Amino acid sequence: MSNIKPSLAKGTRDFSPQEMVKRNFIFDTIKKVFKKYGYAEIQTPSMENLSTLTGKYGDEGDKLIFKILNSGDYLAKANQINLAEKNSSALISSISEKALRYDLTVPFARYVVMHQNDIALPFKRFQVQPVWRADRPQKGRYREFYQCDVDVVGSPSLLNEAEFVLIYQEALTNLGMKDFTIKINNRKILSGIAEIIGKPELIIDMTVAIDKLDKIGLDGVIKELLDRGFTDADIDKLKPVILLEGNNETKLAQLKEVLANSETGLKGIEELEQVYSYVQNLLSGSQLKFPDLELDITLARGLNYYTGCIFEVKTNEAAMGSIGGGGRYDDLTGMFGLKGLTGVGISFGADRIYDVMDELELFPESATAGTTVLISNFDAQAELYALPVLQQFREAGIAAELYPASAKLKKQMGYADAKSIPYVILIGSDEMESGKLTLKNMQSGSQQQLNAEEITSILIKEINGAD
Amino acid sequence: MSNIKPSLAKGTRDFSPQEMVKRNFIFDTIKKVFKKYGYAEIQTPSMENLSTLTGKYGDEGDKLIFKILNSGDYLAKANQINLAEKNSSALISSISEKALRYDLTVPFARYVVMHQNDIALPFKRFQVQPVWRADRPQKGRYREFYQCDVDVVGSPSLLNEAEFVLIYQEALTNLGMKDFTIKINNRKILSGIAEIIGKPELIIDMTVAIDKLDKIGLDGVIKELLDRGFTDADIDKLKPVILLEGNNETKLAQLKEVLANSETGLKGIEELEQVYSYVQNLLSGSQLKFPDLELDITLARGLNYYTGCIFEVKTNEAAMGSIGGGGRYDDLTGMFGLKGLTGVGISFGADRIYDVMDELELFPESATAGTTVLISNFDAQAELYALPVLQQFREAGIAAELYPASAKLKKQMGYADAKSIPYVILIGSDEMESGKLTLKNMQSGSQQQLNAEEITSILIKEINGAD
Repeated sequence: MSNIKPSLAKGTRDFSPQEMVKRNFIFDTIKKVFKKYGYAEIQTPSMENLSTLTGKYGDEGDKLIFKILNSGDYLAKANQINLAEKNSSALISSISEKALRYDLTVPFARYVVMHQNDIALPFKRFQVQPVWRADRPQKGRYREFYQCDVDVVGSPSLLNEAEFVLIYQEALTNLGMKDFTIKINNRKILSGIAEIIGKPELIIDMTVAIDKLDKIGLDGVIKELLDRGFTDADIDKLKPVILLEGNNETKLAQLKEVLANSETGLKGIEELEQVYSYVQNLLSGSQLKFPDLELDITLARGLNYYTGCIFEVKTNEAAMGSIGGGGRYDDLTGMFGLKGLTGVGISFGADRIYDVMDELELFPESATAGTTVLISNFDAQAELYALPVLQQFREAGIAAELYPASAKLKKQMGYADAKSIPYVILIGSDEMESGKLTLKNMQSGSQQQLNAEEITSILIKEINGAD
Repeated sequence: MSNIKPSLAKGTRDFSPQEMVKRNFIFDTIKKVFKKYGYAEIQTPSMENLSTLTGKYGDEGDKLIFKILNSGDYLAKANQINLAEKNSSALISSISEKALRYDLTVPFARYVVMHQNDIALPFKRFQVQPVWRADRPQKGRYREFYQCDVDVVGSPSLLNEAEFVLIYQEALTNLGMKDFTIKINNRKILSGIAEIIGKPELIIDMTVAIDKLDKIGLDGVIKELLDRGFTDADIDKLKPVILLEGNNETKLAQLKEVLANSETGLKGIEELEQVYSYVQNLLSGSQLKFPDLELDITLARGLNYYTGCIFEVKTNEAAMGSIGGGGRYDDLTGMFGLKGLTGVGISFGADRIYDVMDELELFPESATAGTTVLISNFDAQAELYALPVLQQFREAGIAAELYPASAKLKKQMGYADAKSIPYVILIGSDEMESGKLTLKNMQSGSQQQLNAEEITSILIKEINGAD
């Protein structure tokens, strides 16, 4: 037994009761919306076979996967040449069979392939679980963090894309956000643009460069395009596209002209128009605020992956990168040998959403509430009196505590304060005689003499009101 | 990209939508009870510094901890002597800094010590998270499984013990269990017995032996006691204690006689009586069924650890080991240098509870429900008609889907069946003309012509009824 002062592993966090209530508020709100749209939860194990993960995230990603050391005499079974050469990287596969989940997408692909005979297509699933990355920890970047993914596989319908726009709109609105933009683009439009310029093979270079417009400005983008093999003539053609302005209709009208000779490009425009039309029809009789859906031709996000619509969400109320994103991919499960299964999905950046909500003080009071009432405890007689009252509150669904020992009032009040318990009941000899207990509102400081039933009603109102 | 057929890491599980709904029903039910009793949720990271975990679970436990391989050129920083000698075990600490959580208790102790200035004592917390053990997988034993722990530190009051009895009673009752026994014992009684025999130093040997009464019978226990250094005379004294019969009062009365000369033993009896009295007083005005609380003198459970009351819960409705247990420990945080903090806690065996509930078919219908209604899709016109109706359902809180493409009736019905969707809405030209949609009850097969508002009412009733 070491007596060393304990610490957290680098890049990891504890979550206190106050933080957990807020985090659960976010997860519960988002999950509730997922379910309303017909998505069902699955979970996959934290550890996967290393071979399932390796090669799916690029060389850089492979290095960031946390590997689990084999049990037992792992060196005896290690590759002896790699061991003798002290080749750390090559040795891994012979001393580590398992690794921690790096994202939710690859395990989901594995899930779909392994359970393909049990699932009904289209398969609509959501998954909210932690992932682990051996990144250098820094502000806002952790080695363990949650991802909230919602995807449908096996359905090419653009209704799915439209519903994801609504899922963002409804979930973020329910979280209390008032001003956010859902950016949308389409890989086919980007392909069309590269085609028109006559450099379809440079689509990745093009999009990587224009994706940086926000960060490095037009001059930066132009410089990068030149570096990446585009000519001044190409850039002249690209400029109007990059600088596209106006509302979505204006942008799409301009794009239609530019892309008039690209079948792929026109298909991309058609898809966006269809998504927009679905959103309008879905919301034609709705109370939900119409989403701020903005066509952003510079939006790329891991383009290698996406084949159709691409999404990204930004809050306009706080300085924060994207709080969500996603898109359509046409070959999720190909990596495991199941070809031709189209999918589309989005994710919510729960940690960033937490920070935004904290900054804007969007968490409702109910999302900070634990125990509703504390019964004070001054002596054995009052404690005895309190016991059935305590249980009566709980049976009415009220979170209630009896201070577990007789103690000074100040100490008990301090406990209620520290736990943000909104009501304290004082039981002294007067109270026991009259049956009227003293209910103290900890926020206002006001006190009332009431019997247990009256208190129950007040507390139930408090709970329901706070919801 | 490998095209190898993917598999799960040994000893791990995927959870399908159907399983997740059931698992969430268990976790939600238990958490709701924890909260009513004033417990607040915390979470700790999946990975801890290896030094935090090592030495806390015994040598066998240390081997079962999953170690995480350091990133980068780990062999360069490894202990070169251990490496040259291929000493797998000694090398671990120089190539692995982090490890996966083995239980929730040690991380909780670390949490309390690290946050001791921020938490109000008594600190009542619950924690529901997975843990990992490199055990040999077998039926019902997994390498990743959830623990549900609820503990209070900093309060010696036996009210806590009594409330844990009620937490078991209420949570298991709410899960639908009807016949289960909460066994209780007290370490001080076991100490007293060892004292009376005159072998206080053999208390561990004694309890390890009598703990096996259920499995190996009296003769087996006697043999083991002889092997462990007890004499025939000792066993003559022990026998009546081991074979204690009758109800709790009878047992306690007999024990009082046996332990008349042991201060510690009598203290243990007094504690049990106090817990029993608290339970009675708490429930004096309650609807909750009085718990089947049974004094079991052979109950020991990791005795080294417990210092007061010890609990274990068994279902009597299915053949299953314990589905929960716990007790009081007086030095949880001593391992991290914070002495003298008493604690008491229990845990629920969620996986075993799941198996029992599945066997007894205790999951309510609401715990198998996902989407409530599927709107069928036969052509573009019907789809367009359906879109605002779909959204209207969702805004009323109903989980609803529109089949995302026009398809044959059989295919759409198959989808509803596979997802156990209880209602399907059929929209054809008649329906669009009259505004009366066909609502099909998938279980009874009956159909009704209703407008969207009428259907909304029916579905809301369905949801509330199922709750």
